[in-house]
Amino acid sequence: MAKELVVIALGGNAILQPGQRGTAEEQLENVRTTCRQIVTLLEEGYRVVLTHGNGPQVGNIIIQNQATDAVPAMPMDICGAESQGMIGYMMQHSLRNELVRRGMELRPVASIVTQTVVSADDPAFLRPTKPVGPFYDEAYARKRMAEGETWVEDAGRGWRKVVPSPDPKEIVELEAIRRLARDHAIVVCTGGGGIPVVREPDGTLRGVEAVIDKDLGGQRLATGLGADVFMILTDVPAVAVDYGRPTQRFLSRMTVSEARALQKEGHFKPGSMGPKVEACCRFVEAGGKRAIIGSLVQALDALAGRAGTWIVPC
Amino acid sequence: MAKELVVIALGGNAILQPGQRGTAEEQLENVRTTCRQIVTLLEEGYRVVLTHGNGPQVGNIIIQNQATDAVPAMPMDICGAESQGMIGYMMQHSLRNELVRRGMELRPVASIVTQTVVSADDPAFLRPTKPVGPFYDEAYARKRMAEGETWVEDAGRGWRKVVPSPDPKEIVELEAIRRLARDHAIVVCTGGGGIPVVREPDGTLRGVEAVIDKDLGGQRLATGLGADVFMILTDVPAVAVDYGRPTQRFLSRMTVSEARALQKEGHFKPGSMGPKVEACCRFVEAGGKRAIIGSLVQALDALAGRAGTWIVPC
Repeated sequence: MAKELVVIALGGNAILQPGQRGTAEEQLENVRTTCRQIVTLLEEGYRVVLTHGNGPQVGNIIIQNQATDAVPAMPMDICGAESQGMIGYMMQHSLRNELVRRGMELRPVASIVTQTVVSADDPAFLRPTKPVGPFYDEAYARKRMAEGETWVEDAGRGWRKVVPSPDPKEIVELEAIRRLARDHAIVVCTGGGGIPVVREPDGTLRGVEAVIDKDLGGQRLATGLGADVFMILTDVPAVAVDYGRPTQRFLSRMTVSEARALQKEGHFKPGSMGPKVEACCRFVEAGGKRAIIGSLVQALDALAGRAGTWIVPC
Repeated sequence: MAKELVVIALGGNAILQPGQRGTAEEQLENVRTTCRQIVTLLEEGYRVVLTHGNGPQVGNIIIQNQATDAVPAMPMDICGAESQGMIGYMMQHSLRNELVRRGMELRPVASIVTQTVVSADDPAFLRPTKPVGPFYDEAYARKRMAEGETWVEDAGRGWRKVVPSPDPKEIVELEAIRRLARDHAIVVCTGGGGIPVVREPDGTLRGVEAVIDKDLGGQRLATGLGADVFMILTDVPAVAVDYGRPTQRFLSRMTVSEARALQKEGHFKPGSMGPKVEACCRFVEAGGKRAIIGSLVQALDALAGRAGTWIVPC
């Protein structure tokens, strides 16, 4: 019985909880909890490919890189690759251990380092918006701005570098992921939306300083793999209209055209539910059967239609 | 025509040259040069799985981790995973670009995060020998030693932590690597010999503070995959007897029993040619057709028997 292929995009809380500093112990404990949810889906027969955010982890790596001149600091693409190795290891390690604990068959579990192509012409490159790395004083920020970087002041906390967040176009390692995901292997990939690369005129790729939205990257992955379901797991139970107001109402199901209409009415905030709903709409518009937004602790219920928000065709 | 499967263990010079500080530009340039050699093997029809050292890279990551208290320092297994992500990205990025430059078919190229099982009973755990991380003063070293760590003094340069170097037993992600390596995909894996893990009584794995020899890890990988050839590429043209003496003589071919005899006579230094010859002997003794030690710049010649040292059965 080959059940549905589900691509799952894990939110930040799957690895690091608000208020935590991000010790290895904290992260491993959160990942363990997350993996119990995922393995429950495997027990039900679903095939799973996982992707995940990397914001706090790559942020910490950048802070460590900037903290010393004893060794050369790495550019953002390489820091992103490091975070994929780190989180990939924690995930595959914990997934395998959970299979062992439940006495389940030891299918292959592996993380693949993933690059994602963005367009060099993406307007995001003209208007960097995503803050990365540590806070600095104004003098340092001005010096780096004179070198062509973009920095913004965060009132009271200092100055921070901002980088572009271009739209993901293509998962470079898609075919490798597809091959590995066959026959019930579990793949972790496209971490942090993938390492952003642009295509040069000669067809070669070049890493760039940018941040890809992990849900939009996950959609490219899910559509590319021909997944049956694209599921975004986060820390809220479902998508709401009038979020945070007395009239707030959770939605259990909407068509993609209903979602697009609510989107136009401004119900989904940028940097929060906005890109999640956008990613789900794109998945369904590209032929996907259903996209789901739900909470990590209700993953199985969301997949079965008993929780979360389903976004479906038409 | 399915040519031989070759597992290649790349030496440190494939990524970082002696005297270099390890900037991203330096490392990417070295990796590009390395990938040109590898793609030449692919052009000849060989199937290739790559593994690599990570000493300088993980060393730098540890230095960065120790440089600040602003974010939590990660343990060695996670630093190793980060280095796999970093080097894996540089390798797969450069390999793909070289395929494009030569107008070759775009087969899948991907890096897999890899764990390697070591025995919790390995005597190496009783006698840590591998220095890792930055130098510190004696007071700091004594404090950490009081917490159970082992530190050694390096005359003149200060104190350094040492960790065990246990024998690799099993590549955890072997089946994933095998599946991906089918049909001419190129896989980069088992970086730094793999992230060392021990098996707990309940069968789950646990990351440990240790360093695995990359050539011995590469042998487990090569034998596990049933590779035809295990090739160690380094910065010397071949194995020599009486190395560094007037009577020095390079060997073009030896049987595994000849190699074992020379090993007993002390021709191969620990920490240098010793583990390379040991890894090759193990590969051939486990049924491999031939193991090769040669220089990176003569990879194709070594594979064809025109350079390097072949170690063969009997």
